[in-house]
Amino acid sequence: MKILALAAISTSLLIASPLAQKAKEAGLKPIPNDKKELHKLIDNPKNPITSMKVELGKKLYFDPRLSKSNLISCNTCHNLATGGTDGVSAAIGHKWTANPHHLNSPTVYNAVFFSAQFWDGRDPDLEKQAQGPIQAHPEMAATKDHVVNTVTSMPQYVGEFKAAYGDNVEIDFEKITDTIATFERTLVTPSRFDKFLNGDSNALNKDEKKGLQTFIDKGCTTCHNGVGLGQDMNAFEVTAKYKHRNIGDFRGDANGMVKVPTLRNIVETAPYFHNGAIWDLKEAVIEMGRIQLGLDLSEAEAESITIFLKSLTGTKPNVMYPQLPARTASTPKPNAN
Amino acid sequence: MKILALAAISTSLLIASPLAQKAKEAGLKPIPNDKKELHKLIDNPKNPITSMKVELGKKLYFDPRLSKSNLISCNTCHNLATGGTDGVSAAIGHKWTANPHHLNSPTVYNAVFFSAQFWDGRDPDLEKQAQGPIQAHPEMAATKDHVVNTVTSMPQYVGEFKAAYGDNVEIDFEKITDTIATFERTLVTPSRFDKFLNGDSNALNKDEKKGLQTFIDKGCTTCHNGVGLGQDMNAFEVTAKYKHRNIGDFRGDANGMVKVPTLRNIVETAPYFHNGAIWDLKEAVIEMGRIQLGLDLSEAEAESITIFLKSLTGTKPNVMYPQLPARTASTPKPNAN
Repeated sequence: MKILALAAISTSLLIASPLAQKAKEAGLKPIPNDKKELHKLIDNPKNPITSMKVELGKKLYFDPRLSKSNLISCNTCHNLATGGTDGVSAAIGHKWTANPHHLNSPTVYNAVFFSAQFWDGRDPDLEKQAQGPIQAHPEMAATKDHVVNTVTSMPQYVGEFKAAYGDNVEIDFEKITDTIATFERTLVTPSRFDKFLNGDSNALNKDEKKGLQTFIDKGCTTCHNGVGLGQDMNAFEVTAKYKHRNIGDFRGDANGMVKVPTLRNIVETAPYFHNGAIWDLKEAVIEMGRIQLGLDLSEAEAESITIFLKSLTGTKPNVMYPQLPARTASTPKPNAN
Repeated sequence: MKILALAAISTSLLIASPLAQKAKEAGLKPIPNDKKELHKLIDNPKNPITSMKVELGKKLYFDPRLSKSNLISCNTCHNLATGGTDGVSAAIGHKWTANPHHLNSPTVYNAVFFSAQFWDGRDPDLEKQAQGPIQAHPEMAATKDHVVNTVTSMPQYVGEFKAAYGDNVEIDFEKITDTIATFERTLVTPSRFDKFLNGDSNALNKDEKKGLQTFIDKGCTTCHNGVGLGQDMNAFEVTAKYKHRNIGDFRGDANGMVKVPTLRNIVETAPYFHNGAIWDLKEAVIEMGRIQLGLDLSEAEAESITIFLKSLTGTKPNVMYPQLPARTASTPKPNAN
């Protein structure tokens, strides 16, 4: 009996289930179990991850003084407590201004796996991305000078930059945003789905496996693939039929291309789509079937896919809330106007 | 030699220095070293501290979905990363509205030591205080129903309330704000000053001791006393002479009484005074000398007091940033208007 049991376990560990194999063939990839392999996947050779940069980047990520008003940090819209996002349809920033294109804040969790950042995919990586919202007027509304003067006005920050990059570090805007990006690169959330793809065939239950099967069979993996389950650009089809639901109207990109958002932690990141038009996950699944795949998914199919999607909720990294350096006489004053 | 060294240490530990004695006679009190004694000081017998309530209260404290917009949490204005405050002159809340009386957000750290809450001292404790900003229109702008419906819409929250209070708990607005207050009661920050008052005569250096001496001699302890170094109400004198500096104009209380703010972590809580009118600590010390004590402090005296005040920066409790429950179909939608 013992030998049989062991044999059963080792089979499930060593031989991926046919469904896991099929998922991989459909383009789905796990977050690697192996730490070195994961590090290679999330690292940027031009801006390598070090523990000192991560710790400093975390402080900057949570520091509202980087914004013009001193009230908005990266974490305001990409809140690590709520799935890495803000839970409102369109981002609201400086002076309570909504995003002019009514764009929804994408989650920062697992954003490292995207090959393009922003809904219109205009930036290639998190280093470049981090420069945008800090300066955008409806977001943090800061100038580069404001950010650099704020950071360099506090000796503790200067000391931590020197510790992270060497005594000759030039603390410019790019160095600051690179450091924020380094922190963001570590925000990956392995889930039971990853365990399943990595060979543990019991990591998903029967209903979740059925949902994954449906997810693949219906063609969802055409766009939602890779480690991020959504990483490249895709045309967002908007037919007149659906315009009344305000699903489309994407104006960020002239060709109507929209980045395919990740499905990881999807139950935590409502409302859905680039414009946050739909709050219910199953409804979003049905709508995507109609718009993107030209399919009328049955209630049962949509429910099944939704059950699978819930298995993508991952374990978040432990983040100790930072203690930020105290401002000094030379720290720029907040300006709420 | 060894015996002599030990004797010297035990003397410093057992016999408080004459200055510490004098400080106590002037009304200054330390945060107790003894955990039981501290617990007694911060606990509320009507709302006793338990670890489950603290953990749940922390989540609620950081949850922006308690606000009408879903964008503002208790931590937005009382940010635990920046001295327990927001670092702007007047609090800015819902729809980017500044506090109509131009009142500065007081720090939440050590607020448990106050005998009155709010600048006009209208509430007796943190339990009552926590009900205010959540409902205030220029702050979180929520109705009691919004708060209760939000919390009870998430099964994880309901489960945690049951675990904390028993299965028959009624999750009403008061229970929610009581739980937030329980978390806030734990936010105390012992400093080197406390070590000094508790008998370690080497915990302050020579300059800090001199500053403490000046602080007492000049009469600062008349208002800044107790464990909080500022806890009761006091008339805020506004003479015509200083009106141009906009130090006064307190309209929250008909008698012009203003709560004496704590001096703990004062280097982290600029700008100063109920209206956040002054950013520089030494300048604030000089102004208080003029307005409240009728003294013209010399530069050297103000500098000395400031050096002492810096020793009041305390060790903050470690706060793991929470993972909040995911919203459900019945969670009230955000309303930014």
